[in-house]
Amino acid sequence: MRVRLDLSYDGAGFSGWAVQPGRRTVAGVLADALARVLRLDAVPSLGVAGRTDAGVHATGQVAHADLPDDAVPEPDVAALLRRLRGVLPEDLVVTAVTPVLDGFDARFSARARHYRYLVTDGPPDPRKRGFVLAWPRPLQVPAMHRAAQGLVGEHDFAAYCKPREGATTRRRLLRLDVGRQDGLVVVAASGEAFCHNQVRAMVGALLAVGEGRRPVQWPADVLAGGVRDSAVTVAPPHGLTLVGVDY
Amino acid sequence: MRVRLDLSYDGAGFSGWAVQPGRRTVAGVLADALARVLRLDAVPSLGVAGRTDAGVHATGQVAHADLPDDAVPEPDVAALLRRLRGVLPEDLVVTAVTPVLDGFDARFSARARHYRYLVTDGPPDPRKRGFVLAWPRPLQVPAMHRAAQGLVGEHDFAAYCKPREGATTRRRLLRLDVGRQDGLVVVAASGEAFCHNQVRAMVGALLAVGEGRRPVQWPADVLAGGVRDSAVTVAPPHGLTLVGVDY
Repeated sequence: MRVRLDLSYDGAGFSGWAVQPGRRTVAGVLADALARVLRLDAVPSLGVAGRTDAGVHATGQVAHADLPDDAVPEPDVAALLRRLRGVLPEDLVVTAVTPVLDGFDARFSARARHYRYLVTDGPPDPRKRGFVLAWPRPLQVPAMHRAAQGLVGEHDFAAYCKPREGATTRRRLLRLDVGRQDGLVVVAASGEAFCHNQVRAMVGALLAVGEGRRPVQWPADVLAGGVRDSAVTVAPPHGLTLVGVDY
Repeated sequence: MRVRLDLSYDGAGFSGWAVQPGRRTVAGVLADALARVLRLDAVPSLGVAGRTDAGVHATGQVAHADLPDDAVPEPDVAALLRRLRGVLPEDLVVTAVTPVLDGFDARFSARARHYRYLVTDGPPDPRKRGFVLAWPRPLQVPAMHRAAQGLVGEHDFAAYCKPREGATTRRRLLRLDVGRQDGLVVVAASGEAFCHNQVRAMVGALLAVGEGRRPVQWPADVLAGGVRDSAVTVAPPHGLTLVGVDY
């Protein structure tokens, strides 16, 4: 039986999503917990909507796993949710477990991913320092929002992607909005898919505009250049959260 | 010269406000930082609006300190703020330094203290687990709010106070509102002053109402009883934040 797992996590304690030997990763901890509560002989492999980097958080991550039919009779998914919560650590929360058809794939069935990057340019709230970037200078948020509009649409985002051999860097960015909300500067990024580092690199370019180091047109000019620009600083991971996935 | 210091802190790493030998406390770290940046011979003593317990947070704490006139010429308070920020750890943020008249006393001039207690009765957001109490059962928030109204006003709060020899437990509670906001259950408590443990004990009583273990009238009945009731569980410190002080 295939199940969908909705997940929230604090990325600080994880070396990202993907299983790596000797590292504590989200997929590793989750797969171990599934094997433990279901007494599986082998750790299940997981598909996921967003392969978040080390330090990146999630409140709306979606994964899937194939479980032996005899391990989880369908009516028992509520019990599976409770038992997972009983063994998972505080920084990884399963919010829902849902039986799905075999055709559902957390990665390939996803139509859109939604991220939020949080920044404060005022005195930081120390309670939130784990998921809000403290920026030491005032940010011109309307300029950041105007600059962001130059990135929306379907483009080759090579200038904002960490290169991977043979992989396309063409992506459709559905929305990139910057505004102030509850005392924070919020960058809301939605796309069909994102390449590696793309959201954090776009945020880095917008921060340069926000503090007046670069003109509003600059992020779009970098995009048009088509190559990684060393002047674009990838924003730190801890400000970024995957907040939702559309199917 | 007397200065007012506006403070935010993450209470997790502090053994409360008050200086204690061998413990890391908010007042201890702040006084050491003042002595260091001003090259004072003696650590300054601090007055404070709310002597928060171990684990309790603040976003609107107010303290005062008397500094030697030659240490801080008045135009230099902006420089003092920058220098303090340079030496203070990430979990203690000075948001403002203001010269005040000698008559200003952070504790005795305060007219009202405002606290927020945050609870989630749904799947917790792991990023916020340091300042939101995760409650494992659903809460009836309207019942909690009705119960809270039985505590508002001037009363002897002995039933909700950790006893201190010879100290009065008479207090005026200005407001105790419970509502849902941004997916959290928020208890907003405002009073002229609070006795030790009072907010957390009131929240503990309201949680018992919220999960249906006690009737709506119970917190007011406990108040009228006038003695600590072992059935009132003091809510954990990490859900509580001092959010502001009125002068």
